[in-house]
Amino acid sequence: MVNFEKNKALILVTNDDGITSKGIASLVEAVRPFGQILVVAPDKPQSGMGHAISVHDILRLTPYHGFEGIQAFACSGTPVDCVKLAIYEILDGHKPDFLVSGVNHGNNSSTNVLYSGTMSAAVEGALENIPAFGFSLDDFAADADFTVSKNVIHTMMQAAMNNEFPKNICLNVNVPKVSASDFQGIKICRQAHAFWKDSFDKRIDQFGKPYYWLTGEFENFDAGEDTDVWALKNGFASVVPIQFDMTAHSALPTLNNWKLNN
Amino acid sequence: MVNFEKNKALILVTNDDGITSKGIASLVEAVRPFGQILVVAPDKPQSGMGHAISVHDILRLTPYHGFEGIQAFACSGTPVDCVKLAIYEILDGHKPDFLVSGVNHGNNSSTNVLYSGTMSAAVEGALENIPAFGFSLDDFAADADFTVSKNVIHTMMQAAMNNEFPKNICLNVNVPKVSASDFQGIKICRQAHAFWKDSFDKRIDQFGKPYYWLTGEFENFDAGEDTDVWALKNGFASVVPIQFDMTAHSALPTLNNWKLNN
Repeated sequence: MVNFEKNKALILVTNDDGITSKGIASLVEAVRPFGQILVVAPDKPQSGMGHAISVHDILRLTPYHGFEGIQAFACSGTPVDCVKLAIYEILDGHKPDFLVSGVNHGNNSSTNVLYSGTMSAAVEGALENIPAFGFSLDDFAADADFTVSKNVIHTMMQAAMNNEFPKNICLNVNVPKVSASDFQGIKICRQAHAFWKDSFDKRIDQFGKPYYWLTGEFENFDAGEDTDVWALKNGFASVVPIQFDMTAHSALPTLNNWKLNN
Repeated sequence: MVNFEKNKALILVTNDDGITSKGIASLVEAVRPFGQILVVAPDKPQSGMGHAISVHDILRLTPYHGFEGIQAFACSGTPVDCVKLAIYEILDGHKPDFLVSGVNHGNNSSTNVLYSGTMSAAVEGALENIPAFGFSLDDFAADADFTVSKNVIHTMMQAAMNNEFPKNICLNVNVPKVSASDFQGIKICRQAHAFWKDSFDKRIDQFGKPYYWLTGEFENFDAGEDTDVWALKNGFASVVPIQFDMTAHSALPTLNNWKLNN
């Protein structure tokens, strides 16, 4: 348990690219003016970990001194493990006022929300009813330019402090790879109907045995101008409210007609 | 690429407890009358892996001979990796007619759908627009009794063959731990508003350093008799249709009032 001031907002910061990535450093600096910060982030890259938790393995927490004047821990687990350890071990059950995850190197628009460790950490915040954001920049480069995303983070944090945050919701914020002068603004969107068309790169190891690397291309089947994919393509930052009720309510009547108990 | 008959339904079977678990053996036997089967399942337990995919590691596929007369592969990756490898490598892009995942040892009702590797494999089927089921039995025991779940699987597979399956939906089917005589039937439900209240078991290793095990209790805040948690508690199998559009459409008007571009 670490100690924090009672009269200042407490902001939990995590990510999936790992605690040493440029993206999380830029996020820490962007939210620094809004309160006191606790960082709990993976000690290695955890991209694509989705909502994974460690149930068959132990977890480690190691103090990390890479953020000036900020309490930080590197965690051996997944992004969701980081959120759970922060709340239930480090903060002894006390919930932070905000959870921010990212800034991810690479966009998490559309169905990427399912695979993304960055967004799953934010969804875990929603499950705890903590106002939560996942921030992603549409640039995979390790040395990406986070200038525009810093401005977007400022705007979103200010808005979250001035308005009531919807209950049990987190926000999936994606920032386009554009210069500040080409940036078109922030757009509230829905998740686009777009998917990965997967393929595998089959290779042969030094013993003659095959192994596979996952690869693929992202395909958009959704022309809607109200989608996150459209916004990003047109120079806007997209904001999609994300819920964790996965019930397809519209399918309930159809299934009730299946007469399963005859 | 393996070869299958063109005039018989092709059923892809996977799980998250691993290819040697009793649950997947019971699922293979339950769906055997409905078509030809391909099994691609993890070579080790992958519970709690959520929608994780392997992006930083290679994948291996090893022929497995544990199911009589059935082509099967053990995969070194996650449940979602198994689905992707089955479709895009083993079947060369051909989509199976059905995807069935499970039978999970332990229930995946309510928000467990987010953490469950069993259900994430089914959601990956929905993303591919393959009629997909995740089956779970409310019993963690390795030697659990799958008699009732076998009957439920028969009913669900028969219904899926006789009816049009909703597009881009998978079904989360949970079976209660009851005898056949106490079983109350199958109930179409919504996901209950219920959560894990986490805690960590902190221990000290042989070098004096702390480590943590995730633990916790599942708490239900939802009295609805139309929920999966209610159904299971009252001897029914629950069927929840699951979608992958995580947009909280109801929150869009609120967010549009945040005036983010002033």
